[in-house]
Amino acid sequence: MFYSRYFIPTVKEIPSDAEVISHQLMLRSGMIRKLAAGIYNYLPMGLRSIRKFEAIVREEMNRAGAIEMLMPSVQPAELWQESGRWQFYGKELLRFKDRKDNDFCMGPTHEEVITDMVRREIKSYRQMPLNFYQIQTKFRDEIRPRFGLMRGREFIMKDAYSFDVDSSAADSSYEKMYQAYHRIFERCGLNFRAVEADTGSIGGSSSHEFMVLADSGEDAIVSCNTCRYAANVEKAEARNVQSAAKAEQLPLQKTATPEMKTITDVANFLRMSADKTIKTLVYSSSAGEHVMALLRGDHDLNEIKLKNHLSWDEIEMATETDIQKITGSPVGFLGPVGLKQKVTVIADLAVQGMINVVIGANEKDMHFTNANLERDFAPDRFVDIRNVVTGDACPRCDSGKLEMWRGIEVGHVFKLGTKYSKALNATYLDADGKEQVIFMGCYGIGIGRTVAAAIEQNHDENGIIFPLPIAPFHCAVVALNTKDSGVMAAAEDMYKKLESSGIEVLFDDRDERPGVKFKDNDLIGIPLRIVVGSKGLAEGKVEVKIRATGEVQLLPIEDAVEHICKMVATALGSSK
Amino acid sequence: MFYSRYFIPTVKEIPSDAEVISHQLMLRSGMIRKLAAGIYNYLPMGLRSIRKFEAIVREEMNRAGAIEMLMPSVQPAELWQESGRWQFYGKELLRFKDRKDNDFCMGPTHEEVITDMVRREIKSYRQMPLNFYQIQTKFRDEIRPRFGLMRGREFIMKDAYSFDVDSSAADSSYEKMYQAYHRIFERCGLNFRAVEADTGSIGGSSSHEFMVLADSGEDAIVSCNTCRYAANVEKAEARNVQSAAKAEQLPLQKTATPEMKTITDVANFLRMSADKTIKTLVYSSSAGEHVMALLRGDHDLNEIKLKNHLSWDEIEMATETDIQKITGSPVGFLGPVGLKQKVTVIADLAVQGMINVVIGANEKDMHFTNANLERDFAPDRFVDIRNVVTGDACPRCDSGKLEMWRGIEVGHVFKLGTKYSKALNATYLDADGKEQVIFMGCYGIGIGRTVAAAIEQNHDENGIIFPLPIAPFHCAVVALNTKDSGVMAAAEDMYKKLESSGIEVLFDDRDERPGVKFKDNDLIGIPLRIVVGSKGLAEGKVEVKIRATGEVQLLPIEDAVEHICKMVATALGSSK
Repeated sequence: MFYSRYFIPTVKEIPSDAEVISHQLMLRSGMIRKLAAGIYNYLPMGLRSIRKFEAIVREEMNRAGAIEMLMPSVQPAELWQESGRWQFYGKELLRFKDRKDNDFCMGPTHEEVITDMVRREIKSYRQMPLNFYQIQTKFRDEIRPRFGLMRGREFIMKDAYSFDVDSSAADSSYEKMYQAYHRIFERCGLNFRAVEADTGSIGGSSSHEFMVLADSGEDAIVSCNTCRYAANVEKAEARNVQSAAKAEQLPLQKTATPEMKTITDVANFLRMSADKTIKTLVYSSSAGEHVMALLRGDHDLNEIKLKNHLSWDEIEMATETDIQKITGSPVGFLGPVGLKQKVTVIADLAVQGMINVVIGANEKDMHFTNANLERDFAPDRFVDIRNVVTGDACPRCDSGKLEMWRGIEVGHVFKLGTKYSKALNATYLDADGKEQVIFMGCYGIGIGRTVAAAIEQNHDENGIIFPLPIAPFHCAVVALNTKDSGVMAAAEDMYKKLESSGIEVLFDDRDERPGVKFKDNDLIGIPLRIVVGSKGLAEGKVEVKIRATGEVQLLPIEDAVEHICKMVATALGSSK
Repeated sequence: MFYSRYFIPTVKEIPSDAEVISHQLMLRSGMIRKLAAGIYNYLPMGLRSIRKFEAIVREEMNRAGAIEMLMPSVQPAELWQESGRWQFYGKELLRFKDRKDNDFCMGPTHEEVITDMVRREIKSYRQMPLNFYQIQTKFRDEIRPRFGLMRGREFIMKDAYSFDVDSSAADSSYEKMYQAYHRIFERCGLNFRAVEADTGSIGGSSSHEFMVLADSGEDAIVSCNTCRYAANVEKAEARNVQSAAKAEQLPLQKTATPEMKTITDVANFLRMSADKTIKTLVYSSSAGEHVMALLRGDHDLNEIKLKNHLSWDEIEMATETDIQKITGSPVGFLGPVGLKQKVTVIADLAVQGMINVVIGANEKDMHFTNANLERDFAPDRFVDIRNVVTGDACPRCDSGKLEMWRGIEVGHVFKLGTKYSKALNATYLDADGKEQVIFMGCYGIGIGRTVAAAIEQNHDENGIIFPLPIAPFHCAVVALNTKDSGVMAAAEDMYKKLESSGIEVLFDDRDERPGVKFKDNDLIGIPLRIVVGSKGLAEGKVEVKIRATGEVQLLPIEDAVEHICKMVATALGSSK
């Protein structure tokens, strides 16, 4: 590609509305432009990266036996009403009416559509296993679209759906996808981890997320330093460790803690560490139910664990008014002792081993000290409802400790069981002619998000450092002085030879100063750069630079093509 | 691809809701399935054909210097308000609000979005010419979606937009696309024609449609039997031919024509041919204006010509009430003589040469005979407002006559001029530093519709006869008896050898009777078929059949791969 005939609108300034580095660099390198909140134009360079990644995804999906098809964006409401998600999905589901006043939505995911297709076409156990995938544009009306392609509203996704005769066959389909996902992200040259995850609004029995590791990642993930356990913090299990020694229970005391509303304030005021205090929170369901949660003062509530335990559709902090009704106290001094109104009290597992604790007295500016379980308060049950923290014991092995990482979710695989097939009545006849419900799995990869995550993980102060397999071009050929016809001829010759060897080349033929060209090529992150200049040419040499390492080599001009071909083959091959 | 592990749900019965053959065959061959009116799932075989065609389009667009990018489906209302189309586009534009109550639409086309991108990025004449294209999913809320992919609501389109410094540079961009479109449809092996066309709601100064010829085509097109003139009937110009001899004007007579309401009835009743009568029609604009149109009795009004002449946004037949007000007469007896209310009267050019005509008397059951221009009635102006008919004189050359064809519009190229760039203020600085408005062109190809049109043009009673360049697979290898391990081994060996030679092969390894396999392979239209059976194998031979011609050859098994490779290369190469 001739740079001068292409369209790479690079920008020097850091765009003011871009918070994360990948968003900044994708704008600055001319990969994307915003059309509306969370809705982007993919400019030529952005699209090239996306297509490169799509091709890897497609190859690995095909290799794993998945079959490509394409479903529509616009979906009829009836199917979503059948699955129950028309109500449940919330405002992320963009709904509208067509000209004939029929209800439709923009597909945020395709379980309903594919299950509907399958129930019409699949009649017999002989027709399974089947796994359909598509690479398709989805829409989710995010309340806070941000970070460029990382959390957009319109976005490209690879989604796959497997259909099996029973749970164990479905497990085997799941395992195939799990392995394919490993190959996909390995081939992209990304540092990633597969972690256990919550199933969220998709549902199902269990799931794994694929996380690209990056300090700026939105997700916190943990892994064991000893065994293979790894999970999203949303899902990571806390091990039930009771304190070993039991101290003597001291008498309950009411203590004035004026204006001390936070755990930190109270602990500092009483000169004790936060882990000797209990944090009391009140939550509400959308149906108006309430629950009180007790946590060790230095722990954080995991709302997803609490929500899943209660089987609530949604969960939110109770209002001040509701809290006042239940406890008789303003926020900041809440506790489980002396409640005005009956409420279920759920204590975190870690509360079980605590003794002589500080706890709110349900009275303004007052806390109890030396409160004790059973004697002073009795939770209805003990449940794992907290976020794990660094150093927690591993829930799976005996010696491991948990470590924390930041990650960007780029893929998610789900065992769906019969959630959708039951709702939509997708059944088949087994070998005995008996009707059975189909078992499903679903498997997503955020295409644009993976490219953004790759940049988040691979960049420096000069710009993007693309892993070669998903770089828009493998190589740039930079003609140093375009007014020197010898340089231009040699550079164009090099460009053509590389192209005909199957290398994707951006030929920087622009009439610009070398500094401008080098800056642009660094910014857009082309992995390999060949500089053709008059000085080198006089010696029969060109300069080859590796973007990732900064390594520079002077090569005889006649060896350059073969050298580049080898480097590209290695980068592609090692990850195949 | 192993047939048994793929998904080709063929159907024997002709689906009751499919009117045209391509729709029937795409359903029957398992290429598509309907999700909602005008909204389809592309099943694996359908998607393969579509992807094959997309690849040809992409290659030719790149070859012509167009740059690929990708724009969103969801577009903000502001841009459409700026261009004025938010009002003008009508109900085909699907509008909705997002969760924050902002107005959006599903993009039916992308002039606004690309022009907005370009006005932000293009500042100088040095940055042009530019031509951006995308292959993208569009939505048009058709009032009567039908014919499968031929007139869907959600559909895949290639759209391109060129940006130039002036009209003559824009013409050259247009010419490049015109040539690229020729190459694209030639490479697909389709019988097509480029015709002059009306610009419709896209606008601009002139346009060509690319029509795949097929008897079932929705569009009527004409071409000259002598020169290169060809046009859509909507657009085709009638040559102004006055009748040579002038007869004597006879006295006007009022004649009873009881219950004779149509031209045919009146002409029969009065024992004269329809071309001696004048047809009177009354039309209304959406703003409530009226116009009376006069046509020779055997001619049909071309509403688009009339609408364009009047510069009306929309045009429709006047209501009976309005007609009564204007003429004082019920429909069936209308004429331009003795109107109750002033109305503009436009006569078709062909009316100019008529003498002693029959015309409605604006009175129930009455017509005038021997009415004459000027003496009895005087139209405000004479305009070409009729559809041309077979045998009309060519408007371009002196000796040619027009012939009629049926066609399916698969591509459309437009010279837009400055319609959108002016509305959206897309300007650049010329070499003198003066601000100038950018000249645009836009260029569309219906991807799914082209595949459907190819089928409409190429099929027989057994099913689809795909042109090889857009067939889902080049070749099928049919193992005759899957229980014969020798046959299966030889067939699989053939399949693998073909695949590793770059041939796309569907390996029919199903445990089905030969008749079932042959029927399915004919239905899905694979161009080449190799049958491996025990009888042939005993003689060291396989059978090769060409779907299009029915030609069958027995080939030595060791020659078959090379033979197939040559046939595929010829089919692909001849159209490259």
